[in-house]
Parts: sequence; C-alpha cells; structure tokens
Amino acid sequence: MSGRRSPPSSQPGTTSKPGPSGPGQVDAVLPDPCLAFGVDEFVDALPAKMRESDEGITFATDGGVSVGADFMALQAAWVEGIVGMARAGARIVVDDVFLGGAASQQRWWKALAGIDVLWVGVRCEPAVAAGREIARGDRTHGMAELQADVVHQGVVYDLKVDTTHTESLDCALIIAARLS
Amino acid sequence: MSGRRSPPSSQPGTTSKPGPSGPGQVDAVLPDPCLAFGVDEFVDALPAKMRESDEGITFATDGGVSVGADFMALQAAWVEGIVGMARAGARIVVDDVFLGGAASQQRWWKALAGIDVLWVGVRCEPAVAAGREIARGDRTHGMAELQADVVHQGVVYDLKVDTTHTESLDCALIIAARLS
Amino acid sequence: MSGRRSPPSSQPGTTSKPGPSGPGQVDAVLPDPCLAFGVDEFVDALPAKMRESDEGITFATDGGVSVGADFMALQAAWVEGIVGMARAGARIVVDDVFLGGAASQQRWWKALAGIDVLWVGVRCEPAVAAGREIARGDRTHGMAELQADVVHQGVVYDLKVDTTHTESLDCALIIAARLS
Amino acid sequence: MSGRRSPPSSQPGTTSKPGPSGPGQVDAVLPDPCLAFGVDEFVDALPAKMRESDEGITFATDGGVSVGADFMALQAAWVEGIVGMARAGARIVVDDVFLGGAASQQRWWKALAGIDVLWVGVRCEPAVAAGREIARGDRTHGMAELQADVVHQGVVYDLKVDTTHTESLDCALIIAARLS
Repeated sequence: MSGRRSPPSSQPGTTSKPGPSGPGQVDAVLPDPCLAFGVDEFVDALPAKMRESDEGITFATDGGVSVGADFMALQAAWVEGIVGMARAGARIVVDDVFLGGAASQQRWWKALAGIDVLWVGVRCEPAVAAGREIARGDRTHGMAELQADVVHQGVVYDLKVDTTHTESLDCALIIAARLS
Repeated sequence: MSGRRSPPSSQPGTTSKPGPSGPGQVDAVLPDPCLAFGVDEFVDALPAKMRESDEGITFATDGGVSVGADFMALQAAWVEGIVGMARAGARIVVDDVFLGGAASQQRWWKALAGIDVLWVGVRCEPAVAAGREIARGDRTHGMAELQADVVHQGVVYDLKVDTTHTESLDCALIIAARLS
Repeated sequence: MSGRRSPPSSQPGTTSKPGPSGPGQVDAVLPDPCLAFGVDEFVDALPAKMRESDEGITFATDGGVSVGADFMALQAAWVEGIVGMARAGARIVVDDVFLGGAASQQRWWKALAGIDVLWVGVRCEPAVAAGREIARGDRTHGMAELQADVVHQGVVYDLKVDTTHTESLDCALIIAARLS
Repeated sequence: MSGRRSPPSSQPGTTSKPGPSGPGQVDAVLPDPCLAFGVDEFVDALPAKMRESDEGITFATDGGVSVGADFMALQAAWVEGIVGMARAGARIVVDDVFLGGAASQQRWWKALAGIDVLWVGVRCEPAVAAGREIARGDRTHGMAELQADVVHQGVVYDLKVDTTHTESLDCALIIAARLS
C-alpha cells in the first residue's frame, strides 16, 4: 500500500549474510534508494559479551546456533524498529534467516501489518551451500547444512529463487523485476 | 521514564565510528543488554551507488562530507526506526556525528519525544583527533579537524567526556555510571 | 623438486581477491599446512598514501588500475620474499592478477627458479565476472571486465579452471587433486 | 648497512595488531615507501583449520595462546620471507609479539643477519592495555594482560616507546625520527 515496499527475504542456505552466494545485494539493482539490513548486522549490534552467553547467542562447533531470552527480546525490538523505518517512508531490504521457520516469519508478519511486502525465499542445494561455506572460510562448518531445511518449514513466499545454478546478481534482478 | 534509556551520543572529533579513540564500546560496560548503532552502520546500509552520488553522500579529498536529499530522507526514516526500537523496550546506544550541529540534534530530539535519553558529548582536541585519524589509516585526512567544531555548535549535553587524555574505556565507565 | 610445491595462480576475472567466486580458498582443501597470499594483501601492506599516489597504485572510476615505480619496486621485493618462504620449506598458495599478462608471469618465473610450481589459470566469463563484481559491492565497477582479457595474454598454465558454471570449491578440489 | 632498514618492533601490550593503541601505523609517517606486516597477517595466511588445531594456533578463553609444530614451521618460513623482502631492497616494518620473549627475538635475529634493523619495544601499562582490549571488542579478554610481561623478557631494544600516556602517532613519529 501507499507505494512503499519493504521486502524482507530469508536467505537460509547461505546463513543470511548478504554476499556473492545469495541475492543480498538486491539493493544494488533496485532503481530507488533503499536501506538494506540483515540478521548479521543485528548480531553485530549486540554487546560482545552477548555473543558468547546463553542469554544471547552461541555458536556450537557443529554449526548449531542457540539463542536465549535477551536475544529474543532485543530481536523483537529490532524488528519493530526496522518496520518503523518502512513506516517512515523508506524502502527496506531485509535479509533474515528463519531459524524458527514459520514462527520466525509470524513475528515479522505481525510487525509488518499494513506494510506492502514481497516475501522472497532463497534456496540453494545443501551440498552447494556447504561448499560455499567452506569457500568463505569465515563460517562455522555445518551451519549451512543444519539450517538448509528448518528455515523453510512452513514459510510462505511470494517468490522463490535458487542460487544453486543461478548467479546471485541474476537472482537479484528477478527480485527487482517483481518490485517494479 | 519507564526505565528505558536510549542515550544517543555524538562523537565528533573522531568522526563517529565506535572505536578505541571514543567511548563507542560503552555497550561493553553497561550492565544490561542493549543494541549499539552508529552513523557508520547507517551509511553501510545505503546502496553502494549512493555512497558516490550527490543525492547520497560524498567524501571530498579534503575531508569534507556532503549529503543530499535521498540521504536526508533515508536518515530521517532510520532515526525513526532506531527510536522505534527504544519504544519497543530495547536499551539503545547511538553514536552519531552532528554535522548539522544543533539542527542535527533537533531531528533526534523530535523523534525521541517521551523517551528517556542521556545526551553525551564526546570531545577530543583537534590535533589529537587528527593524529588518531592518521593512525587509523582508514579515514580521509582532514575530516576530524573539519568536523571538530561544527558538530558541537549549539548542541546540548547532559554529560561531556574528553578522550584527549582519558582512555576510552574510562570515558565509557563514566557514561555507564550516569546510567545506573 | 624436493616435495615443495608453491602454486601461484592468477585469478583474473575476479580481480584476485580470494573469495567465493574464485578458488582462493584452495588452502582450505589442501591436506598439508600452507600459507596463502594474494595481491590484495600486498596492496594492504603498502602505506595508505601509496594507495592514492601515481608512484603507488591508483584506481580510476572506470575500473582501470595504474601502478607506478614505487609499487613495482616493492612488488618485486614482495615476490622475492614470498618465494623465499617457499625456499624455506613452506607450501605457498599465491593468488595474483597478471595485469601485465606474460610480463607479469615472467617476473614470478624468474624468482621461482628451482621451485616446483603449479600454474593455475582461473577464468570466468566476463559478463558473469561483472555481475559478481556488482554483487560483491566493494569493487570499482568495470574492473573485472577490463581485466578479463589482458591478464591471460601470453600466460602459460599447467591447469585451467573456469568458475562460470563450476562452484569455487569444486575448482579448488580440482587444483588440490593435481597437487597430490 | 646499505641504507636499507627493516625495523621489526614488538607490540606486546596491544597484542600486536597495528592499531590506534600502538604505533602500528609507523609506515604512515615514514618518508620513504615501505611494506608493513604483522603477526596477525601471518595468522590470516594460515588455513582456517589451523586456527583451531593443536598443531596450529589455539586461543583459550582466558586469553592464552598456544602454538604447535606446524605453526612454528610456517612461521620460520614466513620470517625468512619477510627478511628476504628486505634483502631485495624494500624497507619493512614488522609488528610482532614475542610470546617466547628472548627466544622469539633470537629467531628474527638469526634471519636478519647483515640487515640494518631498529628494534623498538612498545610498552603499555597492563591495566591500560586491558582496557583498550575491552574497548576494541574483538580480542579475547585477558590476552593483553597475560602477554604484557612475557613478551619483553630478555628482549633487547634500540628504542622503547610507551603508549600509556603518549598518542600512538607521537610514538610513531619518535620511531620515524630515529630512522632518518
């Protein structure tokens, strides 16, 4: 409505960081100015001590990710604020990983009431995602594979793209085409 | 009010990046979980093309910074969103540079209506700021000196700290003490 | 000879940075410990002022790269030192971009006298390279396309890989297989 | 001799990363072109898997650092190569942390035979170093304090600077003055 568009997209296979293996740079091909955020920037906004605390977020050596009560509370506030930027008139691109599947999407959905949204599911074959994770060199091994399934369970999309055999820029162009 | 506290602080002499020369890591010493944001993260959220456009933000070789209409519009939305996170219950630390002096503070002030705020002015002698800028190696030379005066003109603070001769952690502890 | 192997590889289409679009992480799949270096680390080792000087290295807005006398002198010393690490017994992976084509390879060739080397050419279709450059968001646009041809002119390889349709990890595994 | 100068400096209190709290940017104030390297760049050149292996390098949660046989072998080759760059005519700045105290310096000393070197000891009061470590936010807490003593034991310097109360740029200028 009202011409505003704020397309949160989940980028599971690649653990959400905007990067060459996903269409995280969709903002680079959108014609209008926008703000791009990702769950990684949210984690960076947390105090360092919360990145190794049970109440915050912990990364197991097998690639598992656990989050606690403080993390959930701050994340809820962050979601409200990002949506607030859209309400204030900014086009927003959000790159999130729905570790809670449908429940994660529900949280955004409720906050987004009345906002025009394009939901984009970004898939990648688990084996390819795992390979890209090794190639990046800065991710806990196993994370991509562990997340590949759960992040799509029960999630509803307006558009799906698959980066397994399609260049990330081409995926971004497909998304941009749907927004114009 | 309400126990929430969201202290935007301006960090002029050091051009705002949370770092060793300013109390950007004040979140590291606060007892309660919080989210920390800075103007640099806002600039990172802009599309790359806006970082070299007159409508966006441009950095002159003499350290001057110019911003255009698109930048101002997205920044206003960003401010609304950050304040929205505070309204949603999160403690927030904001590290901003008031290139517009009092006018920049006014924009935050209006958005922050009803929110409990501690305004902290962070100073540093221009010559020391310029030296730290060289030592960092990732800033346009001259930026610190050009910004040193303008960012404080007409700005009102609850607390002032000076990092010229005080370690940044000690400044952070002074700020934290005022919040508890 | 002697079991040491130091495979300098040129990574043109991707402008040499070890990253997901090239097999820069070949060290991740090699069975033995090794050191990995790239031309980007060399540029980072230069004083900041050389990164904007005619005697150093300058990046034009069209993606062109120019280097001067100081750059060439330090680069020659850097090449000698990297080869020195191989002579001292370390396996080395070098990720270079031969902006001077065959002449660039000659410089390495002379320094590498007596060292067992696998030369790997890494190709990528220019259009795909240009797209990845946009997706990365941290490269001067046009660089990939400008470099795509020149970096292979007259260069001799023991092995060629193409990242256009092959995942970078798979390219790395092909290279690793040739080394074992 | 010969006008070449390659001043390895140890930067203990700050755990060696060139940064605002130490004179790591000494290359920024030297009149002649040079290459700057640090132990952190060496660690970055290691395969990711060596950064969590007993044969490589491991970081304990108390700030302790342990290195194994593969690390020592590659480090010896790296030292040879860095010295090789100086022998090839480049001015070099090395920023190392002598976790092995005098024994660490001995390894450089032997490799540097015949090279003109300025040894600079960089100190910082442990409490201040610990505070800067917290302010940086990207270091294991306790590392600075644990390393503060051991890295100077038996080490011989031509020049000592102390960053406790002196700006890092001023320390860099003191070093540069000794080299001209």
